[in-house]
Formats: sequence, structure tokens, C-alpha cells
Amino acid sequence: MMDNSARQSIEALFHPSRIAVVGASPNPGFAHSIHRLLIKGGFEGEIFAVNPRYSEVLGSPCYPSIDAIPGGVDKAIIIVPSHHVLNALEQAERAGAKAVNIIASGFGEQDDEAARERQRAVREFAERTGIRAVGPNCLGIVSTRAKMIAISGPYQAFNRGPIGLVMQSGLLAYSTTLPPMDRGFGFSYVVTTGNEADLEAADFIRYMVEDDETRVIGCFIEQFRNPEKLIEAAELAAERKKPIVVLKIGRSEGAKRAARAHTGSLVGSFEIVDAVMRRLGIVRVNNLDEMIETLAIFHTTKLPQGPGVGTIFVSGGAGGLVSDLAESIGVTLPPLAPETAEKLAAVIPPYGTVGNPLDTTGQVGQQPEILEGSLIAMGEDPNIHTVIYGQAFPTRVDLATPAGEVIRSTPVRFPDKVFLIASLVTGKIQPGGRYDIDPVEPTTEIGGVPFLQGMENTLRAVKSMNDYAEFLRNRNALPKHQAAPSDVADYAREIVLAAGGKPLVERAAKSVLSLYGIPITQESLATTPEDAVEAARAIGYPVVLKIESPDIAHKTEAGGVLLNIGDDGAVRSGFASIMSRARNYAPQAELAGVLVQEMVPKGQEIIVGMTQDPAFGPAIAVGLGGVLVEVLRDIQIGVPPLSEYDLRGMIARLRGAAILEGVRGAAPSDVDALVDVLARFSQLCLDLRDVVSEIDINPLVVFERGKGARVVDCLIVPKAGTGA
Amino acid sequence: MMDNSARQSIEALFHPSRIAVVGASPNPGFAHSIHRLLIKGGFEGEIFAVNPRYSEVLGSPCYPSIDAIPGGVDKAIIIVPSHHVLNALEQAERAGAKAVNIIASGFGEQDDEAARERQRAVREFAERTGIRAVGPNCLGIVSTRAKMIAISGPYQAFNRGPIGLVMQSGLLAYSTTLPPMDRGFGFSYVVTTGNEADLEAADFIRYMVEDDETRVIGCFIEQFRNPEKLIEAAELAAERKKPIVVLKIGRSEGAKRAARAHTGSLVGSFEIVDAVMRRLGIVRVNNLDEMIETLAIFHTTKLPQGPGVGTIFVSGGAGGLVSDLAESIGVTLPPLAPETAEKLAAVIPPYGTVGNPLDTTGQVGQQPEILEGSLIAMGEDPNIHTVIYGQAFPTRVDLATPAGEVIRSTPVRFPDKVFLIASLVTGKIQPGGRYDIDPVEPTTEIGGVPFLQGMENTLRAVKSMNDYAEFLRNRNALPKHQAAPSDVADYAREIVLAAGGKPLVERAAKSVLSLYGIPITQESLATTPEDAVEAARAIGYPVVLKIESPDIAHKTEAGGVLLNIGDDGAVRSGFASIMSRARNYAPQAELAGVLVQEMVPKGQEIIVGMTQDPAFGPAIAVGLGGVLVEVLRDIQIGVPPLSEYDLRGMIARLRGAAILEGVRGAAPSDVDALVDVLARFSQLCLDLRDVVSEIDINPLVVFERGKGARVVDCLIVPKAGTGA
Repeated sequence: MMDNSARQSIEALFHPSRIAVVGASPNPGFAHSIHRLLIKGGFEGEIFAVNPRYSEVLGSPCYPSIDAIPGGVDKAIIIVPSHHVLNALEQAERAGAKAVNIIASGFGEQDDEAARERQRAVREFAERTGIRAVGPNCLGIVSTRAKMIAISGPYQAFNRGPIGLVMQSGLLAYSTTLPPMDRGFGFSYVVTTGNEADLEAADFIRYMVEDDETRVIGCFIEQFRNPEKLIEAAELAAERKKPIVVLKIGRSEGAKRAARAHTGSLVGSFEIVDAVMRRLGIVRVNNLDEMIETLAIFHTTKLPQGPGVGTIFVSGGAGGLVSDLAESIGVTLPPLAPETAEKLAAVIPPYGTVGNPLDTTGQVGQQPEILEGSLIAMGEDPNIHTVIYGQAFPTRVDLATPAGEVIRSTPVRFPDKVFLIASLVTGKIQPGGRYDIDPVEPTTEIGGVPFLQGMENTLRAVKSMNDYAEFLRNRNALPKHQAAPSDVADYAREIVLAAGGKPLVERAAKSVLSLYGIPITQESLATTPEDAVEAARAIGYPVVLKIESPDIAHKTEAGGVLLNIGDDGAVRSGFASIMSRARNYAPQAELAGVLVQEMVPKGQEIIVGMTQDPAFGPAIAVGLGGVLVEVLRDIQIGVPPLSEYDLRGMIARLRGAAILEGVRGAAPSDVDALVDVLARFSQLCLDLRDVVSEIDINPLVVFERGKGARVVDCLIVPKAGTGA
Repeated sequence: MMDNSARQSIEALFHPSRIAVVGASPNPGFAHSIHRLLIKGGFEGEIFAVNPRYSEVLGSPCYPSIDAIPGGVDKAIIIVPSHHVLNALEQAERAGAKAVNIIASGFGEQDDEAARERQRAVREFAERTGIRAVGPNCLGIVSTRAKMIAISGPYQAFNRGPIGLVMQSGLLAYSTTLPPMDRGFGFSYVVTTGNEADLEAADFIRYMVEDDETRVIGCFIEQFRNPEKLIEAAELAAERKKPIVVLKIGRSEGAKRAARAHTGSLVGSFEIVDAVMRRLGIVRVNNLDEMIETLAIFHTTKLPQGPGVGTIFVSGGAGGLVSDLAESIGVTLPPLAPETAEKLAAVIPPYGTVGNPLDTTGQVGQQPEILEGSLIAMGEDPNIHTVIYGQAFPTRVDLATPAGEVIRSTPVRFPDKVFLIASLVTGKIQPGGRYDIDPVEPTTEIGGVPFLQGMENTLRAVKSMNDYAEFLRNRNALPKHQAAPSDVADYAREIVLAAGGKPLVERAAKSVLSLYGIPITQESLATTPEDAVEAARAIGYPVVLKIESPDIAHKTEAGGVLLNIGDDGAVRSGFASIMSRARNYAPQAELAGVLVQEMVPKGQEIIVGMTQDPAFGPAIAVGLGGVLVEVLRDIQIGVPPLSEYDLRGMIARLRGAAILEGVRGAAPSDVDALVDVLARFSQLCLDLRDVVSEIDINPLVVFERGKGARVVDCLIVPKAGTGA
């Protein structure tokens, strides 16, 4: 549940009836800009100016302080210099405000103690009074339903529509509203959250998830402050099938430095936050233009039933370009079904090309029945779930023309299919086929069909839509791995704690894995050469010998590992040499003995790891052993709990995934066994998150299909301070 | 040299004084559209209509045939149906035309013999008469200097400017002119080349390279028909420092299929054509929006002196976003020099961030001296070669304002540095800082500074500019590998021919490599066991034994390879067993004996290959042995002649390149030796291109730095029909 104080305050921020503009002024500046737009936007509540120097500003009555406003206010927009803000907050409290929007800079973003102290004071004020704050250091808020343009910026008006925006950068709110509004995009709410001294992005996301007018939420995020809030909001969004589109920065060192300078705090691991977002079905985008097209595509109220995309162009060259882009982006353009090709052959001129992409030729302009036949044939093709009608440049289709009528009436005949219109390039919308020079109305849709620009970002948006639809289909289809019985977790925790804060010896670490049903090598500790021989015979030759000592983490470096020991004599001499090398290597070390271990057959080596993110907790990494992990960093990260669907996705996204299918005549690997190990490991990591800081399974050997997998070595590092 | 008939014909196409519009009509259609735009564009020569049904069309006198025009014409635009085209060509000849533009469809793009025959007839006409043709199946030509808009399309006018366009798709010419002209782009020439029955893209590229008004050439290419023409044009362009920007399709199977359907011919290997373009310094782009920004960036007449890019934003969020994008695109944002940071600290407000990206804060709007100080500090930084001033959305900067004055006057103080203005997103240009509503003039530059849109494509364009500048710097710096003496090539050729058309045995293949100075294993052929022992002793133990037979290509499969033979006895028994296994494997095979070969020490295995492209000739592939080549296809392709600069670039672009630097404590590999082998191999491939179809060196073992490299095995396959 969203906490009530946040909901009520956001309600007051978006739907106030009485607003105080604190710091109002007739001179240019933030206050003037916001005040002017509040009036110009037609805000239907009452606006009060606050400034001791005036009795009226921009036609609004002006008071010396907020609490001097007769009858009080429910929202204060605070635009005074930073050292006056606390005073203004107190006035707002006395005036009965339910929420405040602090525009002023000079808080946590600034590198001095007084500024940081001011930010703490804002937070404490909100906590003490329940009067929640957005900001400081932001540009304001827009609520089109309330006709409230309470944002500083070069706006003339604000279009109402289904997009909600939550922006941790005010400037980028301009980027994602101004050019899109020129194209007819409309917004429900826009909020710039600034330093987030109190209310944070996830609070607003949650509010918009619950808001019926908002159909898609776009966010620019430097940092999610409170993972639980994000997770809760995203899970509700998935239930409501409402996409959240996030541009999260922080992948590069430069971005991490910038955010550190900007917000004074660590961004955290980009990869882990990315994995969390993926698991939650959050749509990730990498640039603002891509975000804009992705928001445009989610204007469609349908989602595709599968990944197949059919594309229609009036040129062959365009088709080749789109094939290349689709392949590189991972959008599937399936071949046409034979019936589809037959239907198309009957309508396409001989110099066109029946295929996917379909080249209808320019004749489509003269004969709308070519377009109609093409849309119908694609719509009826069972392998095509989304149909893109492509343009050479952004063109307004006149719905009053026969071609317009086709575009308006054909898609509605296919309620299960998504139809899109997309231009190869971005740009100003040009008049339609008659080459007239009428001014062109902006639009995000033509006849109810989303209208996208720029083929690369269009195809990325299509990929995101397909992935989102697949996420929703699979979300409840595959259960999460069943939790282990609580006594298993308790026992595993005991083993970890027993290590006294030191890394667990291999055998102990593997016993923890084994408790969760993860297959490990057969092995036993021998304290004498004869014990070792007995153990080796029981396991079966050949065997491996390894030193066991809580004080020797790097066994190989200590000369403490012997492979492929074939008989009793070799075991005896091996035992002796391992013990003596270990003693030389670390004279003070406690030597528990020698671990006698089965020598596992060859298989695909997999590396599995767990690390902890300070904010998001345990994250699991998986990669193929060798050059792929070590040189190419070919690793996929997931954040538990992970379903079988999630885990298979992680494996499939490895660049070297084909190796598991078997290359150069090798047998395919037992991927099912790998998924099973990872699912169990996911549960283990969740159960032990409080006591374990790091786990490293290296390698897990996966055998050929049907033959399972086995952990050969494992390191578990307890959290600091968890020793007995 | 460009051939004279092509030059004269293109001159007539772009600068005619008398044009016949053949098929002119008062009714809507291609002819009407072209004719109307010719008049509307203000063409200063004479326009004649040709159509037996009219005496006047759109105000132009109309004649029943081209040769009925008194005084004739120098150019005919032929827009009649395809079966009338040959007749029109003959009329054009009689009318003295120097060139024709055939718009009509129904030729080679159509899947029937009569249509293909028509296309052959067009070509034969051009060959016979020297009256060269562009088309058929295209949309026309524009020459702004001649005020000639001879193109069918939704144009009102055509801006004159420095961009030349050569488009193998008419529709995509719309994409790359209409929206860009809304932004103020101007063009010198635009040509849509259609089926290229006669004149082809490279002819027009060459013409534009020689044209002084054209500063940058943009091309959409499905297929280069004549490699020599392309190479000649591109080499001249590099000499003149005139960038050619190419969007070449055909990477995906879908695009290859589309082009096959569209032009009826094979696209050829995308990778090889790409390698050719890279070597020639052609700027490659992957989508049309990227092409548009890349053409915009080359409006700058400067090129950067190095790769360092400094970025200035009025927001911290933008900086993080740009850091992430720059890293993924490979654009370097170097840290600021200490002096630069000091200078900036003196001008940036405390809530800004001094760094790269630089966050000046929005205060820059009120205080233009912040912008000036920032531009100067960046301009003076020795590590920064290009400075980007970023906008949140496309904004017209009013040069009459103080900020505008800064933008106009500061960059000219740094003649060696490139300055750019770039918006984070694409979109309509908005009014400047005063938030007025004046209509905004389109522009590709602000105060002489190129004005780009969309940060991802902007940074790709910056990367292309940097790579292009580096290409020009290195073009003459490093000599190509010296050609081998001609007797070496002659002797190598003899060895190949002596194989009688069969693949060369390993020893012969390696002797060819050795002639070019490529180091190979020490080895000699033994025909008796005692020969083999003698050879092994001379080489030094351990050795490798391999069957030698011209009839056994797969030696390992035949059981014909024994590794790590340590003493005389093992050589004797090895000899016998190899010979007998080979006899069992291939009873009819001629067995030459056993090759005794040194056992090379461990090193990095490299795979080097040569294949031949039907159009572009030999191409060289290099990759790191193992999973990188076999699973990830981590291969770089180059087309000889390759300079040391080219070869080092190929190696550096391998995804696994870090392995050569030494990973996990391994010593770095002898990259110099690898480059030397590749340079020699490059020469060999050129010399033997007529007799060899394929070479496969697998592996070349590269030892640690300073210790060289050695070829362990090699296969050379002669071209079919080159046997003795």
C-alpha cells in the first residue's frame, strides 16, 4: 500500500484548489514564469502571490506571508532563495498547506554543509508535519486535468493526454514535453522531482500507476532511492498492464561521477538496478528520442500477441534498410505465410515485391485498394502480430481521403493485432498525398493508429512493446522457485555463522549449496593418508586432492590441489606432498586435512556468483567460464526472486549462449539442470542475504543434456560482523 | 580519370539549357509533378513538352516527338510507359540530346524477360551513342545551381547548399531532403539512380567529388556495381578531404532478399564492401536520421585535431545521459586539464558542476559570461578538440542577444577546434531564451556553428567525424607494405599452379607463405622412417608428424597427425602408423611421405584467411582462435592493400583484442609480429588473386612480445581452372 501521507500530499500537489506562489514577482525569473503559466494555463482554483513588497502580482492578490492569506492554501510553490525556505515552510504549515513544491536551489546538490543541512531540515519538516515536499532544486509540476501549469519553462500551453512523466532532471522534462507536444503528445501529469529531499520518483510513479487517466509513465532516473517503493509500484503497474518506461543513467563512469556531483550520493550498480527493472517488467530505454517513440507506441491500447512484425513500404530500398535495422535491434520480421503471399500477389503491381518487408510500390497513392489489401493480408497472417505501415517522411494522412479511410477502417477489423504508422526519419509532419500546403495538425495517432518517427527508435519501441507483452504473458505463467523449508535456511545460516566471519572452506560452502538441492561433487575430508585412500576408493578413481584449511583461501597458489590422482599410491604420496606444501606456504595455518573429491567428467564450465547491492540486496551473476567471462565480461545479472522464465532469459541473453546448444559437433548442454541450479541458488541468496556478502561458484560443470550439472568449487564469504 | 562521356553526360543532366519533358501531361502523375517543379523552381533554360496529344502543357510548347523540337534539346526526361522508352531514346538521339533521365518503371526491377530485355536495350543505346542514361525506375534529379527541380515529389522549392545526394532509392531521397530542408539544409545536387542500367552511383559520386560547391556527399546504396569506379572516386575524395557518407544496406538476410528482388542481382558480401569502404575512408552510417546528422556535422569546414570532446550543458542530468551515450558510441570525453577546471571554477555557480560534461546551471541564460568562460576554457584545453554546447530541445539562438554574440564570436578564436551546438532530442526548432512566439527560421548552423539534433545520432556523427579526421591524418603517414619483388610473385604463382587445381599440400602452401617472408614451422618431408628420425634430430625434439598427400585434405580425420613425439623410437613407430592409417583411410591416395615438423611452443592462436568477393576481389579475415571465432564470429575483415594503420585498426576492433594485451597474468602477445605477417599476407593475396580462391592459415601462433609468430598449418585452394 502507498502510504497515505504521500498520496494525500501528491493529491494536493496535482489537484490543489488554492495555491500560494511564494516569492511571486512582476520581474522575469522562475516565480514569474510559473505564476504566468498558472494563469495562462487556465488554472481553475485560486492563486495567491506571496511577497512583502507587493500587494498584487500578475493580477493575483499578494500577501506578505503565506499564513497571511485569508482562508489559507492547500499547496505552496516556494521560489524564494534557499535561506528563506525554512521560514516559508513554517508559514505554509500555519496556512494549512497539505504539500509544498520547493523550486529553490542551494540544497543537497551544493557542496557545502549549510546547504546539506537545509536539505535535512526540509526532510525533517515533512516528517514532522506530514506536509510532504517535492524538490528542492526542481522546475515544478504540471497537472493537465487541473489545468495547472506550475512549471517554469518556455511553454505556451500543455496538451492533456495519457502520458505521465516523472523526471529527476527539470531540463530533461523540457526535452520530453516540448518537441513531443509539437507532435500532438498529451500528458496527464509532469513532475520534476529535483533533489528528492522528501517525496521521490517512486512515490509519483505509484500515484500515476493508480491514476486511470495515465496510460503510460515515462521517467528519467539518476537514482532510485527506495527499492521497496519502486518494486511495489512496478508490481502494481504490471498487474494493471500499465507500462513504465525508464531512462536510467549511470552505466558509464562519467555518468556515475556526474550523479555523485549532482546528488552527492552513489548511484549504485547500474547492472543490478537494470536487472531489477527487467524482472519488474519496466521498459528500459537508452536515449530521450527513444523514450519519446516508446511513449508514443504505448498510445496503443492493444498489446501484440507475439513478436512477429509485418512491414509495408512503398519502396524496396526502405525494405532493405528496415530489414537491417530490425535484425540489429532484435525485431522479428517473419516470412509471409503462403496464403498471405498469394493474397498480396493479387494486389501488388508487378514491379513491387511480395515479402516482408512488403514493397507495394508508389502506386498505393493512386490505388488505396493496394494498401487495403496489404493491411488485410498482413492482418490475417498468423505469424504477424504487429503491422507497420511505413512512410518515407512524417506525413499527415488525410482521413477524408480513400487512403485515410482504409487506415481508419482496416485496423479495427483486427482487434488482436497492433497497427502502427511510422516514418523512416524524424521531422516536421508534411502534408499528405495531395502535396498541398495546408498547415498540418500535429498528431500522435492517425485514425487511432500510433504514429511514430525515425525507424531506428520505432523498431526499438516495437521491441520494447513486444518484450513488455511477453513479460505480461509470462509473469504469472511460471511460478517462482518454491521457497526452501525454513529449517533448511536455518541450518544453512548456522553453517555460515560457524565460520566465524572467515570465508567458508570449500566443503562447508558446498554443504550449504547441497542443503538447497544443488548437486555438488562427491567428497570427504581425510586427516590421514589411509583415510584418503579409503575415501578415494569409495568415490572411485580418478580423484582430486585439495588442502582444507580455513586460513588458505587460494588453494592452487598454495600448491594445495592435485588433479587426476589414479591409484592408492598416488593418493598417499599426494596427501603427504599437499600437507607439506601447505605447511611451507602458510606455517601458521590450521590444516584440517585433505579433501578427497571425485574428478568430474568434462562439461561446460559455468560461473555463478552472488554479490550484494547496498540498496537492492543480492544479485546473481551467471556466465560461461573462460574467455567469455574473463575477457568479454559476458555476464548476465538477475535479482532474486527469479522465475524459470527470468532465468531462461538470462541464459539466452549471454552472447555465448550458442555454446550451450552445442557447437562444432559438441552435444548440447543440460540447460534444464542449469536453470534448476540457478533457481535453487536464487532462493539460497534470498534466504542468506543477511549473513552472506558474496558467493562464487567456479565452476559449475554442466554436462550434456539429461546428465545434470555439478558444483566443483565454491566460495562463500560471510558478511562482516556475522562471526560467532 | 573519370571517363569523358560520363562527365559530359552528367554535366548535361545537371546543367542542361534545353530540356524535353517526354510524356508531359496536364493530368496528375510523374510527368506533371516534374514538369510543374521545373517551372516552379525557376529553371532558367528552356522547357519543351513532348506529347502528340497536346500543343501546350503547363505553359510549355508541346511537340509530338522529341526530334520535332526545333533546335533540339540537350537533355530528355523520359516519363512514358516502358514499352515506349526505346522509341523515345531514338528520338532523343536525333534531337541531339547529350543525356537522358528515364523515370519509367518496368525494366530490370521487374521479374520478366521482356522487362529485362528493355533494360539491356537502354544500356546498349548508351554504349552505342554515348548518350548516357540515368534510370530507369527512378524519380529524377535536382541541380540547385541550375534551379532545376527535375524530380517528382512533394516539393515546393529546393534549398541550395553544400550537400550532394546520390540515392539508389527515390523514396529515400524524400526522407533525406524534405525534413532536412525544414531544418535549413541545402543541396547542390540530388540524383536518384534507379536501376542503373547505364550511369551508376559511383559516376555521380565522382562528379560531386570534383564539384567545388559540393562539400559532403550522402549516398544510399544497395549495391556498388563497379568497384574500380568507387575506389577511384573515394581516393580522390580523400585527397580533397571531402567526406562521402554512405548508408549501405545488405547486412541482414532480409535486406539481401529485398535487394535481390529489387535489382535482380546479388548484393555481395556486406562485410567485404564495408571493409573496402573503411579502407577508403568512406563514412558509414546505419540509419537515415544518423545520415542527416552526419551530413549536418560536415557543414563544419574544420576537422578536429584529435578525438577529445568537451561537452557543456545547463543541467547535471543531461551530463550523465551524455556520458552514458558517449561511452557506448566510443566518443571520448576526456577529464578536464587542471588549468581548465580552475578557469571554470571561477565562472560556474556553486550549484553547477565543473567537469566534462560541464554543468553550467541554467544561470547561463542570465549571465552570458558563464557561457563565454566555459567555451573559452574548453577551447583552451589541450585534450579537447571538439566542444559541444548542448540544448535540452532544438532552440534557435538569437545572434543579436549577448548569448548569441558569445556563440558567434568565441569559436572563431579557436581555429583548430571544432564547435557544435546539439539538442538532446530531435524536433521543431523552438524560439530562444525569451520564450517569445516569433516564427523560427530554420537553420543548419548558428553563427557558423553546425546545429545538430538528437544526442545519440549527434554523438555517432561526432564519432564519424573523429574517425574521418584520423583516417586523413594516417592516410599517408604509414606506407603500405612494400610489394614483393616480382620474381617472388612469379615463383609463388608457379607453386600454386603446380598443384594442378587441387588444394596445395601443407608444405607447399607454407612455402608460398615463406616466399613472402611469413615465418613458418621448421619442417621437412621424410619418405622413410630413418629420414624422419634424421629430420627430427635436426629440428630438435619434440616434433609433430603429419601425413603428406595431395589427396588427403583432412589430415586429422585420416589419423594422419601425431603431436609431441619425443624420441627416435617414437618417430619410427609414428611414421609407420601414420602411413598405414592413411592407406586405410584412402587406399587410392598418393602418399608423398610424412612431414616432420617442429612442435611450436604455446602462444596465442590466430586464424587468418583469404576469400574472394566476386566484385571486390580478395578479402582478408583475422580472428582469435577458439570460441571467439567459432561462436561469436569475432572476425575483422580487411581488403588489401592494407597499411600498418589499417591492420592495427582491424586487430584493435576485435572484441577479444584485450587477450593480445595479456589477461590473467599472461604475457602480452607479439602484436608487431602479427601485423608484419598480415602485411605480408595482404601483399601475397593481391599478387596471387588470379590463381588462388581461398587461403586458410589455422593457426598462426603468436608468441609473447618480442618472440615473433609462426604459421603451423595452412591451406591454399587454387582457383578453378588454374591447374597445370
